Amino acid sequence: MLSFECDYNRGAHPKIMERLLSTNLEALPGYGADVYCTAAKEKIKAACKCPHADVHFLVGGTQTNSVIISSMLHDTEGVIAATTGHVNVHEAGAIEYTRHKVLTLPSHAGKMDARELRAYLETFYADASNSHMVYPGMAYISHPTEYGTLYAKAELEALSAVCREYGIPLFLDGARLGYGIMSKQTDVTLADIARICDVFYIGGTKVGALCGEAVVFTRNNTPKRFTTIVKQHGALLAKGRLLGVQFDTLFEDGLYFEISAHAIEMAEKLKAIFREKGYRFYLESPTNQQFIILENKHMEKLSEQVRFEFWEKADEIHTVVRFATSWSTTEEDIAALAKII
Amino acid sequence: MLSFECDYNRGAHPKIMERLLSTNLEALPGYGADVYCTAAKEKIKAACKCPHADVHFLVGGTQTNSVIISSMLHDTEGVIAATTGHVNVHEAGAIEYTRHKVLTLPSHAGKMDARELRAYLETFYADASNSHMVYPGMAYISHPTEYGTLYAKAELEALSAVCREYGIPLFLDGARLGYGIMSKQTDVTLADIARICDVFYIGGTKVGALCGEAVVFTRNNTPKRFTTIVKQHGALLAKGRLLGVQFDTLFEDGLYFEISAHAIEMAEKLKAIFREKGYRFYLESPTNQQFIILENKHMEKLSEQVRFEFWEKADEIHTVVRFATSWSTTEEDIAALAKII
Amino acid sequence: MLSFECDYNRGAHPKIMERLLSTNLEALPGYGADVYCTAAKEKIKAACKCPHADVHFLVGGTQTNSVIISSMLHDTEGVIAATTGHVNVHEAGAIEYTRHKVLTLPSHAGKMDARELRAYLETFYADASNSHMVYPGMAYISHPTEYGTLYAKAELEALSAVCREYGIPLFLDGARLGYGIMSKQTDVTLADIARICDVFYIGGTKVGALCGEAVVFTRNNTPKRFTTIVKQHGALLAKGRLLGVQFDTLFEDGLYFEISAHAIEMAEKLKAIFREKGYRFYLESPTNQQFIILENKHMEKLSEQVRFEFWEKADEIHTVVRFATSWSTTEEDIAALAKII
Amino acid sequence: MLSFECDYNRGAHPKIMERLLSTNLEALPGYGADVYCTAAKEKIKAACKCPHADVHFLVGGTQTNSVIISSMLHDTEGVIAATTGHVNVHEAGAIEYTRHKVLTLPSHAGKMDARELRAYLETFYADASNSHMVYPGMAYISHPTEYGTLYAKAELEALSAVCREYGIPLFLDGARLGYGIMSKQTDVTLADIARICDVFYIGGTKVGALCGEAVVFTRNNTPKRFTTIVKQHGALLAKGRLLGVQFDTLFEDGLYFEISAHAIEMAEKLKAIFREKGYRFYLESPTNQQFIILENKHMEKLSEQVRFEFWEKADEIHTVVRFATSWSTTEEDIAALAKII
Repeated sequence: MLSFECDYNRGAHPKIMERLLSTNLEALPGYGADVYCTAAKEKIKAACKCPHADVHFLVGGTQTNSVIISSMLHDTEGVIAATTGHVNVHEAGAIEYTRHKVLTLPSHAGKMDARELRAYLETFYADASNSHMVYPGMAYISHPTEYGTLYAKAELEALSAVCREYGIPLFLDGARLGYGIMSKQTDVTLADIARICDVFYIGGTKVGALCGEAVVFTRNNTPKRFTTIVKQHGALLAKGRLLGVQFDTLFEDGLYFEISAHAIEMAEKLKAIFREKGYRFYLESPTNQQFIILENKHMEKLSEQVRFEFWEKADEIHTVVRFATSWSTTEEDIAALAKII
Repeated sequence: MLSFECDYNRGAHPKIMERLLSTNLEALPGYGADVYCTAAKEKIKAACKCPHADVHFLVGGTQTNSVIISSMLHDTEGVIAATTGHVNVHEAGAIEYTRHKVLTLPSHAGKMDARELRAYLETFYADASNSHMVYPGMAYISHPTEYGTLYAKAELEALSAVCREYGIPLFLDGARLGYGIMSKQTDVTLADIARICDVFYIGGTKVGALCGEAVVFTRNNTPKRFTTIVKQHGALLAKGRLLGVQFDTLFEDGLYFEISAHAIEMAEKLKAIFREKGYRFYLESPTNQQFIILENKHMEKLSEQVRFEFWEKADEIHTVVRFATSWSTTEEDIAALAKII
Repeated sequence: MLSFECDYNRGAHPKIMERLLSTNLEALPGYGADVYCTAAKEKIKAACKCPHADVHFLVGGTQTNSVIISSMLHDTEGVIAATTGHVNVHEAGAIEYTRHKVLTLPSHAGKMDARELRAYLETFYADASNSHMVYPGMAYISHPTEYGTLYAKAELEALSAVCREYGIPLFLDGARLGYGIMSKQTDVTLADIARICDVFYIGGTKVGALCGEAVVFTRNNTPKRFTTIVKQHGALLAKGRLLGVQFDTLFEDGLYFEISAHAIEMAEKLKAIFREKGYRFYLESPTNQQFIILENKHMEKLSEQVRFEFWEKADEIHTVVRFATSWSTTEEDIAALAKII
Repeated sequence: MLSFECDYNRGAHPKIMERLLSTNLEALPGYGADVYCTAAKEKIKAACKCPHADVHFLVGGTQTNSVIISSMLHDTEGVIAATTGHVNVHEAGAIEYTRHKVLTLPSHAGKMDARELRAYLETFYADASNSHMVYPGMAYISHPTEYGTLYAKAELEALSAVCREYGIPLFLDGARLGYGIMSKQTDVTLADIARICDVFYIGGTKVGALCGEAVVFTRNNTPKRFTTIVKQHGALLAKGRLLGVQFDTLFEDGLYFEISAHAIEMAEKLKAIFREKGYRFYLESPTNQQFIILENKHMEKLSEQVRFEFWEKADEIHTVVRFATSWSTTEEDIAALAKII
């Protein structure tokens, strides 16, 4: 059975596994105080061209969103997100569990519009009754978005300008950041993101690691007692080395970028074969997630030979499904897919 | 200065004040165990024609919404509300503070549509990834709504039918319930509400009391250890008599209905004088809150002689404002208003 | 039946009732923006000899503790209290409901010892693993304590010195503050408390009001967006006048002190009659709460003629009970009590 | 430098690493739906002799305590623990962060006493004011305790009997469970624990895994929508296989027991050499953690050659330190230690 349903269907990149193996019996301090965490942080700061950044490792995406958002918001504040934002839809209310409201703006193929953000903030501060309302305390965007789309650099800069004008941080969820940075249709680099955003994370789980997300605070803005907060959220790994070793490997010799580029290569081929065969795309995605509209009967038949993900109903007889490539997708996978679609 | 800005601008109805005075020096047990609380509960159950109801007294509206919603939802659940619902907009995130998401449906002049509610629930349960989403655990409506509008009995029944089909309670926020029940354009009685809803509250603060809301659980569905929950929310009054005496008075000889009817009478006159003078209404409200669209310069001038509430910008040169009547509005107030508008 | 079970068994002091009545039909702005709130705040600041204080009104004691503690603590912090502290025992977990731990120190007849507080803080900061622990973020004391006892001025100053050394605020719960200040055995004035503590509240509910507590921030340390926080806790009264009028009356012509002194007078007489008849006191209380040890059979018999409160089992055949006086206790009450004990 | 400071200083047992490697490129479903999670659950149920158990995998100890305790308690309930319990001291308030109080009983070398538990519950239910208190909703014990000590089977049964009498679950934190079960001085088996406790977890992080704890619900008592709760806590791994593969390996051919027994063997040798050299033990521990009292100067000198953990000050010139063995401790480590102490 072919497997294109997601980008977390295999273990870790072989180089990561090798490294975990070769360091396995070293005696190291716990809770992230080991040399691999330290080395990984340095490599990430260098890759971000942001020497004063503060880097922390967490285990998964929802956990990371929950820890960052709750630790950076005041009790009276909520986080602004597009309606389709992961924090608004698919995290089981993890943000509300930390007592903060997700304030929503329209989603434009997964993206937030800077003018709508500004209008929201203007309206809020013009409202005489705003002391009875949730204060907008942060803007959350994902890049790539949940629909595989990307912000242009100018769009990120526009969002950032609004955020700074209103004194709120811009947080970029980079669960699939590698696939965004290495897209063939982007003008945004990792250094741009570090320069433009106040905090973001570099996704490991979906880009070659067994688990792990690297949080980057770019403006000497790490929340007070962040380690204690992480512990309180049950998010502090005793064997922090598991994260350190993985990110140290990912950021050695550009592995993170190389394997992300591979996934993009595979996605481009996947797009090409779907396009050739006349399939309809739900939207144009320049990254590793591709959304195809299938006729329901066709979908059922196809699902006997390849795994993909149900996304949403398109109409009574069509469905939007997702095909994802990743660092682990092979030319053989693509060739096999070409034969059956 | 005339005062039409809200329905909580005066103290309590004189009969309530008299009663507080006449009972003032009686030695009574605390925390709601006094005879007036007991008597008031009985009167409310009778007025609701719901002998098995369980009645509790709380202090204010946001507190009541927070206590009811959080005590009736499972940790994984959110409350469904219209986007304009008070819990979604004007309670400073009090619901999220209890860790529950407010799930929104479109607002139709403040109201939720039963078909849209059904569609939401159907879609949720059809979604294969719903275990990663916030479960819909309750429907919240306000009656009258934040825009003064009312549900028809058939609309309430349709909402209730959907809720029961999906096994979630229907909660009616009755902060201004009296003004809804006594509207000239309603077919909904207090007994209807008790029959149709799973839980609701009868607003006191905005209908003649100094403070106080009477929560009615209609289906032997009072949350476990409700008194402890109320205490934990800081919502348990030591001198529960303050609430008991007020509601006992409001539900004696139909005072609650009588003073509500008076406010409606005043609202009808207010509408008539605005209409006569050619003012534009933002929407048609059959209750005590009236929304008028004023040209901005006119608004400024008017504000020198009468207090009303800014509601929202209509366009660059117009504003929506609210005029509210209440149990305390007099014929003289209306006559004076007629002269200045 | 005589009623000595608590200090909240009657309504409000008659002067408060008169004032509520005389202001009842004035049209006033909501949410504490009325002239009575403003006037009451000025009077309280004057009575505290603390012109830069910031005063806010809340409804009840548990609510006040919850709002103050949660708004002044960082997410990683807990509040230090004596094991017998109200926040630790009798608030149904209201503090933990705001996500903060109550860190406990031994209770000395209800009081916290400054040396033990210092030792706790020293030990905490000496512990290498303290980043995995709850940080001590505030000291909470009650005055009078839950056992009616009082801190000497030197004891308060010692606690304050420790708190300042460690950079944490000292919070004094004054639910019964009047009865402390007017005790015949105290050297602590209201101005002392305002000078020594970082935040405290002046209890109304138990000292003559229907409800209400006046929070005093003494060091320009009001938490950011405090009104929004109060709203979020469901603690913001629409008719804020209810609190303003009451406190304005209590602090006019020294009424608060006068009625507190009366309660103390009554308590002294009550103590005298118990002492004369040879009753055993559980501890020596210089305020309005008196704790008597009764033989169980005697207790049962006595309970047929007078209401008092069960406090705790003393041993198999004895029970500690509480007799409380208040502003409303009369000489007749005391005389009647003398006859039956 | 020798490393005895903890039992999480090395990676995973080599067999686990091999297995992660050999399964690395298999395409597997996410979120714990893979075959290895399924197989691991079956093996654990068999090892527990509890075929109806429900097993879930989480990442770390604090996270597991937080998820289990908060999902099994009612809003009004707290968890009872010994004062030294991990949840009370070293989890940065993670339990309170979920809004539940930790109710404490005295610690007897880390253990809770069944009679004291009964007395606590009896007193609580005898207290007339308990509706204003936090209800005891669960008993939490750790086995081995934070001091390496163990409950005898009769002690666990006595605790369980009290819990059942009062209708609360008994939760056993088994972060180091293997080292308890394989102690030479225990009469408690894994099957006993599954029979006696309502929920417990089998620690992986400290017993040979990179990370991971296996939660076992033994009485068809898995909390409603547990997966959603886990997701909401940010505790659901996308690559659930990481936990499944590790536990499937640990419970294949008794590896978990074998490596735990090895750690115990090493601990016995470590005890012997300390004892021979006349060191003073802080308490008698039958498991892998040994607490030694060192003279401070000696401690400093020793710390130049071997890492151990500061535990607590014993007196002005002595300190309690911890030496821990684990699955990874070697005979060579012990021999080297013998030379330097």
